[in-house]
Amino acid sequence: MNRPALVRLSLTADARGELCFGEWGRELPFEPKRFFSIRAVPPTATRGDHAHRRQQQLLVCLEGACTLRVDDGESQQSFRLDSPAVAVHAPPLTWCTLTDFAPGSVLLVLASDRYDADEYIRDYQEFLRLTRSR
Amino acid sequence: MNRPALVRLSLTADARGELCFGEWGRELPFEPKRFFSIRAVPPTATRGDHAHRRQQQLLVCLEGACTLRVDDGESQQSFRLDSPAVAVHAPPLTWCTLTDFAPGSVLLVLASDRYDADEYIRDYQEFLRLTRSR
Repeated sequence: MNRPALVRLSLTADARGELCFGEWGRELPFEPKRFFSIRAVPPTATRGDHAHRRQQQLLVCLEGACTLRVDDGESQQSFRLDSPAVAVHAPPLTWCTLTDFAPGSVLLVLASDRYDADEYIRDYQEFLRLTRSR
Repeated sequence: MNRPALVRLSLTADARGELCFGEWGRELPFEPKRFFSIRAVPPTATRGDHAHRRQQQLLVCLEGACTLRVDDGESQQSFRLDSPAVAVHAPPLTWCTLTDFAPGSVLLVLASDRYDADEYIRDYQEFLRLTRSR
């Protein structure tokens, strides 16, 4: 769980619609203490573009699509999140950048702890230093 | 926290879109261990229509709108969920019924525990008996 990874969520569909779910200990490798949702992102906008020192996150695009680039200081991966059944787990010290939001997209992020401004790393050189010293 | 109640989430909006958030101890009166999302619900469909014995939930419509009816065995309330900044907290022994989904709606539910089939009450008369004996 130390590298960013794709996480498949369960999906059930019937005449009443589609339901996707995940739970702690299975699809969700931590107990979330915070959640946020993002929408109405212009197609040219960038979201994220920072890392967390200790917090981990699960990111899933519940409607529409966006591109998530994850960087752990050694390698980079890019995921097109275009299904509510496909999430990405970002462990601590993952630099996340979100771009190319399709119109009407809704992104959900579950985080392992409460909001703490000191937890954010917004300087990429500092991020690289921290990843090299872990 | 023993009655179903509206919960206001924080919303920040700027040129990069809208972000709504909630965290445990503030907007979220429990630590979620499970989440699910629902979409593509036909306008005539009904979702929910059951209660939980011990689990509590937070329900929020992240996109579009739907109507949530909550019943605690003594009184009923109906909420039109049409903003990602408006959630409803359903304590244990709340019968929840969701109807009138607008096209493109996305509902997020955070639950206080993992999935357990024995936790569901699907018989309304049994629900009433349980609410009267608490």
